[in-house]
Amino acid sequence: MDDRDLMSVALRHARLGAGKVNPNPMVGAVIVRDGAIIATGHHDHFGGWHAERAALEAAKRDGVDVRGATIYVTLEPCCHTGKQPPCTQALIDAGIARVVVGSPDPNPLVAGKGVRRLTDAGIEVTQGVLREECDALNEIFLHYITTRTPFVMLKYAMTLDGRIATASGLSRWITGEAARRRVHKDRGRFAAIMVGVGTVIADDPQLTCRIDGGHDPIRVVCDTDLNTPRDAAVVATARETPTIIATCSTDETRAQAYRDAGCEILHVPADADGHASVAAIVETLGGRGVDSVMIEGGGELAWSALRDQMVTKVSAYVAPKLFGGRAAPGPVGGAGVGTPDDAFLLTHRTVATVGDDIVIEGGVDYVHRNR
Amino acid sequence: MDDRDLMSVALRHARLGAGKVNPNPMVGAVIVRDGAIIATGHHDHFGGWHAERAALEAAKRDGVDVRGATIYVTLEPCCHTGKQPPCTQALIDAGIARVVVGSPDPNPLVAGKGVRRLTDAGIEVTQGVLREECDALNEIFLHYITTRTPFVMLKYAMTLDGRIATASGLSRWITGEAARRRVHKDRGRFAAIMVGVGTVIADDPQLTCRIDGGHDPIRVVCDTDLNTPRDAAVVATARETPTIIATCSTDETRAQAYRDAGCEILHVPADADGHASVAAIVETLGGRGVDSVMIEGGGELAWSALRDQMVTKVSAYVAPKLFGGRAAPGPVGGAGVGTPDDAFLLTHRTVATVGDDIVIEGGVDYVHRNR
Repeated sequence: MDDRDLMSVALRHARLGAGKVNPNPMVGAVIVRDGAIIATGHHDHFGGWHAERAALEAAKRDGVDVRGATIYVTLEPCCHTGKQPPCTQALIDAGIARVVVGSPDPNPLVAGKGVRRLTDAGIEVTQGVLREECDALNEIFLHYITTRTPFVMLKYAMTLDGRIATASGLSRWITGEAARRRVHKDRGRFAAIMVGVGTVIADDPQLTCRIDGGHDPIRVVCDTDLNTPRDAAVVATARETPTIIATCSTDETRAQAYRDAGCEILHVPADADGHASVAAIVETLGGRGVDSVMIEGGGELAWSALRDQMVTKVSAYVAPKLFGGRAAPGPVGGAGVGTPDDAFLLTHRTVATVGDDIVIEGGVDYVHRNR
Repeated sequence: MDDRDLMSVALRHARLGAGKVNPNPMVGAVIVRDGAIIATGHHDHFGGWHAERAALEAAKRDGVDVRGATIYVTLEPCCHTGKQPPCTQALIDAGIARVVVGSPDPNPLVAGKGVRRLTDAGIEVTQGVLREECDALNEIFLHYITTRTPFVMLKYAMTLDGRIATASGLSRWITGEAARRRVHKDRGRFAAIMVGVGTVIADDPQLTCRIDGGHDPIRVVCDTDLNTPRDAAVVATARETPTIIATCSTDETRAQAYRDAGCEILHVPADADGHASVAAIVETLGGRGVDSVMIEGGGELAWSALRDQMVTKVSAYVAPKLFGGRAAPGPVGGAGVGTPDDAFLLTHRTVATVGDDIVIEGGVDYVHRNR
């Protein structure tokens, strides 16, 4: 096994913290001597050991000597005292001889400091091994810590002719079971999930993460005029799973009724189209420590979010079927761009299949639009 | 090299006849002795040698002895005298010891007869090697010879949010250069290309195959009321590349003006929506020996063709960009299906990337719709 193989094992361990470490990053570590893995560790939950320390503790528990060994860690070891003493010191104290790093510390003020601390102590450091995979693992963390605005993913499911519902408004189901399971799993990665009031009225979704052990995201309804049905599932379950209704309405009587059901009313300004401002909602959530928002429908909300340059990533599920219908809605509505050159382009486009369906994802490039 | 490797070489040779053998199938042959290829051949053009004979002649020309050798041929050798004497007899006369076959003869009345003729003569026959690839190579031929209706491919290019144009109707360009080159190449495989009059008015396309050595398909405009602009490119070039205008109009004065420009006027009945019947057009073309039609736009024509169950295959190019726009058109218009269970499902779905774009293709299953 070479450095990349061993880093891929560290990545596998890092993923064990998925959904439990937020707003921390997922991190995995593997300690190796003579090509053999002698200990593993990962950051398991917020407040728990960092991955490096978890691996060192595992070695100690098993009575394994780590002096002179190599540690593979998916993220640059920290050199500051936060909830935990610095990992760099722990590695130095343990007598580790070589450290192989995936992603650099995303905080530009700290990046490289951990590595310097190690090299100053005479430890050999190799950086950037499987960096792309290590960065992708923590796309939410890396975005939030560097921008302090939430990582926003626009997710939708459409037919191969671009319809999210039939002309009569029916949308269950477009994708198959495997794709829907993947969406539920994805929800567990996001701190909040946002939908337009039209989607609540049409589909009455639960917006929970129906995966064993998964956590439910905060639900945010973008509801300019407070039209959310009082008996909607997101209102009825607001005491179990937080529900925020973002609105421009100043009708306190109606607002109070939602509050009585356990919802929070978030007053936001209107955007140029007179809708509750998506930018204002996302920024408010970011200020509260919400690191990630998944937008799940419908087309008007998707357009507002794109136009406000709030969408970080697009996740499009394409089902191999055709609905047709001039009046059948597409995933992104609104006014749309004026010319093809104004299109929102995706970067780092990936294509995968999930059951019969195809998932196309990519980051949104607001800088290099065609013109 | 095993049987599959050698059949893949035969497939490569078969493709050399692409665009030149219609309405015959593409066929390739490879003669092998002791694991070494001693001769190759393919059906090069309509009226030319069949692949088996081409390979035998190549061996003769090179002074190579084929007695006791094995021949790999992508399609079951013919056993009847058509434009050529039967290939089975040529193989028997040449002393070939073993024949490895890809696709069976698609004509159900003939399938297996070629193989039986060979085994009766004491030749060892292996069938079905790389059959799926061999069948796919001649999807048009296999469909036409068994159904006598043209193989109809619905092709469109859309954004990842399902738009074939911006809300203002602009569509140049959605996909990148590599995808557009692939479309031009695909056009060379089709005997006819069909568009709605709306596409002619909006885009004034040439609909030619701008590939060196490629042949231009017949152009068919589905034009219910004879609204094709008289100065449209397809009219102006009708003397170089045949153009058929299919219409329900009985206005002979206007029809004559198109005829004077070199177009053919094809009178067809109206369908239930009052549009020129796609089924009638396709069946008329099939009766004339047109084995394949590519439908290239727009959405209303696509819907009519699907509803009439005339579409054999869908070829969707998806560009990694978003237009948005409630009013931006999708690739399939019309009334659309009533419920998700009525969707037109694709079978044998394939996904490929061409440059930055994604191509999703599949056959249309009119039998196993969800309900």
